[in-house]
Amino acid sequence: MEVKVFLESVRTKHPLVHHLTNWVTILDCAQIVKSLGASPVMAHAVEEVAEMTGLASALVLNIGTLTADFVQSMLAAAQSANRRGIPIVLDVCGAGATTFRDRMSLKLMGEARIDIIKGNASEIARIAGLDVRTRGVDAAHVAADLRVLAAGLARERNCTVAITGPVDIVADAKRILAVQNGHAMMAEVVGTGCMAASVIGAFVGASPQDPAAAAAAGLSCYGIAGEIAAQRSSGPSAFKLNLMDCMHSISAQQIAARQRVES
Amino acid sequence: MEVKVFLESVRTKHPLVHHLTNWVTILDCAQIVKSLGASPVMAHAVEEVAEMTGLASALVLNIGTLTADFVQSMLAAAQSANRRGIPIVLDVCGAGATTFRDRMSLKLMGEARIDIIKGNASEIARIAGLDVRTRGVDAAHVAADLRVLAAGLARERNCTVAITGPVDIVADAKRILAVQNGHAMMAEVVGTGCMAASVIGAFVGASPQDPAAAAAAGLSCYGIAGEIAAQRSSGPSAFKLNLMDCMHSISAQQIAARQRVES
Amino acid sequence: MEVKVFLESVRTKHPLVHHLTNWVTILDCAQIVKSLGASPVMAHAVEEVAEMTGLASALVLNIGTLTADFVQSMLAAAQSANRRGIPIVLDVCGAGATTFRDRMSLKLMGEARIDIIKGNASEIARIAGLDVRTRGVDAAHVAADLRVLAAGLARERNCTVAITGPVDIVADAKRILAVQNGHAMMAEVVGTGCMAASVIGAFVGASPQDPAAAAAAGLSCYGIAGEIAAQRSSGPSAFKLNLMDCMHSISAQQIAARQRVES
Repeated sequence: MEVKVFLESVRTKHPLVHHLTNWVTILDCAQIVKSLGASPVMAHAVEEVAEMTGLASALVLNIGTLTADFVQSMLAAAQSANRRGIPIVLDVCGAGATTFRDRMSLKLMGEARIDIIKGNASEIARIAGLDVRTRGVDAAHVAADLRVLAAGLARERNCTVAITGPVDIVADAKRILAVQNGHAMMAEVVGTGCMAASVIGAFVGASPQDPAAAAAAGLSCYGIAGEIAAQRSSGPSAFKLNLMDCMHSISAQQIAARQRVES
Repeated sequence: MEVKVFLESVRTKHPLVHHLTNWVTILDCAQIVKSLGASPVMAHAVEEVAEMTGLASALVLNIGTLTADFVQSMLAAAQSANRRGIPIVLDVCGAGATTFRDRMSLKLMGEARIDIIKGNASEIARIAGLDVRTRGVDAAHVAADLRVLAAGLARERNCTVAITGPVDIVADAKRILAVQNGHAMMAEVVGTGCMAASVIGAFVGASPQDPAAAAAAGLSCYGIAGEIAAQRSSGPSAFKLNLMDCMHSISAQQIAARQRVES
Repeated sequence: MEVKVFLESVRTKHPLVHHLTNWVTILDCAQIVKSLGASPVMAHAVEEVAEMTGLASALVLNIGTLTADFVQSMLAAAQSANRRGIPIVLDVCGAGATTFRDRMSLKLMGEARIDIIKGNASEIARIAGLDVRTRGVDAAHVAADLRVLAAGLARERNCTVAITGPVDIVADAKRILAVQNGHAMMAEVVGTGCMAASVIGAFVGASPQDPAAAAAAGLSCYGIAGEIAAQRSSGPSAFKLNLMDCMHSISAQQIAARQRVES
């Protein structure tokens, strides 16, 4: 696959990416989408989410600071997306930390068709039914093979699964892709996980015909931006700023030289 | 008009600017006010908004992530401001994207006296009754002449109207001002529109006697900071940081050399 | 006391710091904790706060944008922390600005055992019963001696009290510590006060045996990072970024050379 082709599609189509997300990283999620050349919108009132989703090319749901009311809005947005064939990315942020998050994640997956489930290793492991405990929103150790875990959940839920980490694993019912781009500094910045879901939203909004390839391309592009940003950054906050700006300026040449997506 | 005189007024009076705003750009709105030398406060509990507004020199309302409850708090704050003669800026963020936003904007304008209505071209066109659709929170094309649009809404609502864009238009019942400061990079950063409303809040809080002139001065000053920031920024996120810091350091000389406010 | 020993404890123990905080500075609070080498989590749904608190080493409550519902979640989290002996930091952000904030602060202190009360001079003065009015979230002048004020409230409430300002005062029932680190630029950045509470949370989470010493060590370390950051920053927003990154990179040598904690 050619990652640069997927990015070019984002930059020419400017997909509108509707988010119902958490209150911690909401601005970062919006800016990374904007820096990619796409257009973010954040709206959560139950009175308008279905209509706003109708304008969008992708819907990103993130349970990072969910409440029961918020889940109702997520469901209304998700059902609106499902009726229109708009792809949905669900970031199961913090699944495995509390039973409420696990239950709400399962409710969302049960009452709407989710196209891409995204999380770190322990979040996805928990959603797949393993007995792990996420440490707040930081991944805990998972003994299972992540490729097997992703592929199993993808088949069970008939969707795409993206596990982010040192190597990102993307699986659907037929394929497993491993994205080896990225930099260790991404783990030192709050919001890189949430932004990854927004990046996937922008890529799948521009290339909805193959969610797994779009997700892997998005994660590769994001990881490459991280690699370049790390070269010019002395600490995590400078790195985040540079990561954003590298997503804005990244060229087809840079991507072609660095992409590491393997199946 | 002398933009630098209005800025000097902000810096010497340190107006407290109370916000009921959206959850995406709330920190940026607070910081831009602080960087100007004014003082931001954000509070939305219905139990305290009226009292908090009473301490303030201006009230900024932004419907970017509104809910029905939040509109109740906005109304309580607005009515408190009206009783005390505290100027209100309403940013109709996302009007034209959903009927809920349109309806709530009209409700706020119907149940409180709004001093300055601020939005991008398609948001203001929608509030003025035109049949346009805002793309999330990004301006859609508006066929109408923006000067006529702003002046018409200003007369109809007996208030000041500010349309932000490549050229900012500010109109009240008697006058139309065009602000030609700014930089294209402002459109690549999430939050520049919301921050513009906060800047207007700070300027009108310091110079309430002429809201249109204060709004135009604020937008000119903000645009000049953008022009200077763009010279030293390689991407949107570096630009936002520099925009903030240029608002902090901008001098009377820089303003005098660059201001472009025409009537 | 040796500030560097307390920081080393944060960096080796990676305490999880659970926050129920305001929507303005929530990302900054999370990042400063992460930059310190600790782990932040933000969750406020009443269904999960008690369970999430149970995973944490410290709980930080901040009333900056409180609502009545949010206070219920804070109480559930605080009571969970109390049952488990997890230290609680309460940032009485904006106390003295509205009666609602004063009442809710007192309610939290009345219905849970708070280990560290943190605020600026006028916030703490108000909580101690003085007749002062905070200007939004900015400290108003307080005529009282801050050492006497802090010590008196600490004795009355049998807890630690931290007053942040040009000199930070930390008192418990037996001791008064004065932290003379910091930089004037910290007052020009939105969120430095909120971040101070998060820093205290990380330090007391790693060293719960002596909350006053941990709080003073955290404030000293944070102030030293501010001193170093100020040397390389041309404005408040560049300063904030550098402050974050200095917290990440600060060395035992830098701390030993600069710490100014006096009793």
